Amino acid sequence: MNQASDTTTAARPRPILFSSIKDRLWSTNIRIRFGNCDPAGIVYTPKFFDIFNAVIEEWYEQALHLDYYEFIGKRRIGLGYVNAHSDFFSPCLMGDSLTMAVAIERIGNSSSVVLVHAFNGEKEALRGRFTVVITNLDNHCPQPIPSDLRSALLVYAKS
Amino acid sequence: MNQASDTTTAARPRPILFSSIKDRLWSTNIRIRFGNCDPAGIVYTPKFFDIFNAVIEEWYEQALHLDYYEFIGKRRIGLGYVNAHSDFFSPCLMGDSLTMAVAIERIGNSSSVVLVHAFNGEKEALRGRFTVVITNLDNHCPQPIPSDLRSALLVYAKS
Amino acid sequence: MNQASDTTTAARPRPILFSSIKDRLWSTNIRIRFGNCDPAGIVYTPKFFDIFNAVIEEWYEQALHLDYYEFIGKRRIGLGYVNAHSDFFSPCLMGDSLTMAVAIERIGNSSSVVLVHAFNGEKEALRGRFTVVITNLDNHCPQPIPSDLRSALLVYAKS
Amino acid sequence: MNQASDTTTAARPRPILFSSIKDRLWSTNIRIRFGNCDPAGIVYTPKFFDIFNAVIEEWYEQALHLDYYEFIGKRRIGLGYVNAHSDFFSPCLMGDSLTMAVAIERIGNSSSVVLVHAFNGEKEALRGRFTVVITNLDNHCPQPIPSDLRSALLVYAKS
Repeated sequence: MNQASDTTTAARPRPILFSSIKDRLWSTNIRIRFGNCDPAGIVYTPKFFDIFNAVIEEWYEQALHLDYYEFIGKRRIGLGYVNAHSDFFSPCLMGDSLTMAVAIERIGNSSSVVLVHAFNGEKEALRGRFTVVITNLDNHCPQPIPSDLRSALLVYAKS
Repeated sequence: MNQASDTTTAARPRPILFSSIKDRLWSTNIRIRFGNCDPAGIVYTPKFFDIFNAVIEEWYEQALHLDYYEFIGKRRIGLGYVNAHSDFFSPCLMGDSLTMAVAIERIGNSSSVVLVHAFNGEKEALRGRFTVVITNLDNHCPQPIPSDLRSALLVYAKS
Repeated sequence: MNQASDTTTAARPRPILFSSIKDRLWSTNIRIRFGNCDPAGIVYTPKFFDIFNAVIEEWYEQALHLDYYEFIGKRRIGLGYVNAHSDFFSPCLMGDSLTMAVAIERIGNSSSVVLVHAFNGEKEALRGRFTVVITNLDNHCPQPIPSDLRSALLVYAKS
Repeated sequence: MNQASDTTTAARPRPILFSSIKDRLWSTNIRIRFGNCDPAGIVYTPKFFDIFNAVIEEWYEQALHLDYYEFIGKRRIGLGYVNAHSDFFSPCLMGDSLTMAVAIERIGNSSSVVLVHAFNGEKEALRGRFTVVITNLDNHCPQPIPSDLRSALLVYAKS
């Protein structure tokens, strides 16, 4: 522990503008609901992780053209996280409409890194970053990214 | 985007043992409930962030001897996050009992960094890391850490 | 406590068909997400209450043409529940698309009763029933339904 | 729809006192956390259903001496709800400590009715009522209450 200069100024990413990415990334709109917010009147942090996950599920279907639920259900393939991260740039209130855009940062052997940019109007309000690891749901061991998912990720990353 | 070697091997922290910290950190026990888990049979990631927050609230009361709810309620002081992060080392199942220990990594002017280590038995199963920023809940602007909270954080960090 | 014949056969309502109400009730579609489901592979009961609330919020905007968030925010008018009920007719799985239709059962002085029918395909899968009471959010006391809300409820109920 | 006299006065149950049941019902304590509450400053209704479920899980273990998680996991026996209901008598705030007591109202062939009384101090603040139906988790069909569960329910109901 040290009493260093404020940690908020360190390697903190800077918010981007929706116009800078809208032509190359898939995006969807979500509404901040009453039940997403806390007594401080803004979105309760864990709820953002729930929203991020719902957006990623929709991205599988709409952008990757794959069935997220079939992976976890019939195929018994886990799409869980080795780490989950979010930077918060400005507070979001109930009733706000956010535009959520998904980007791929890296594709590895059994894992990939997915970014979710959330824009409140033109300005990025928060950004999620997830290292997804493919696992066998029976033993929770990592396994290579299935070929249909790898192809879809590569196509999306190059577009 | 690049097809680099697996991202999971990069700067990923390594799990620690409960015995290495139990004498110097406050800890509490929580039970993984049915409703915390998903169809993959393990804890749904956003639920861990909810659990982390509940643990931090209890830590305020039991270790810092401060009333978390009075900050947000009467005092209109926000204890929100500039960023929230979690590394997942091993999956947790419904019914598991976790020991959650809180550490302070840094104390800044208006922000601090708090770690929550979650042990499933002796071994760390996941670790949360939160940059907490003190704000005025009426305008959401950062403000210096209140003196009672700063004193309590310093005492805890030195113990 | 008595060991009577099965309680499930008592006054249990029977599921209706979407075609029987679609011309007279406002409806919207929602998707059952991974995070809504539990290790039994179906929607976790409390999540349905969260979905019901989100649907009611959308209904305020789309059908009543009122701002749910302004009531609770600026106007400090609570739209909470005196009771909340749901009957479950058939399980819903992740990936299912539900059509949610809202009906008004009663309009009282300070309270009203709202039904939410959830259809999985043509058949009703569950039904929520909420007694909403209007309160002053500063003292949590009931107060008469505000005139703009009463008018909107009456128009919707007669349509 | 009719504009009848206020629905809140109808067949609404009246809150009871903790002292009236404490000698005959198992109870546990829970704390209302920040993340349980909404921008109206009180518990978000769906969160109470989550809390009720956690209490029922603990009751299985502490009062029925059965493993809730083994039913759903290894034994593939569902403990889901045919209906879920809650009456709300007084609002609960973040930081409140509630005493939750479980009662059995009926035991049928494949279903049972469980009550959860939640006391904020001496006075009941809300009451949940759940019709639990035993199902086969592979086909979601009802099945008779397993003998170990039936015995435990009977013992608890008679105590």
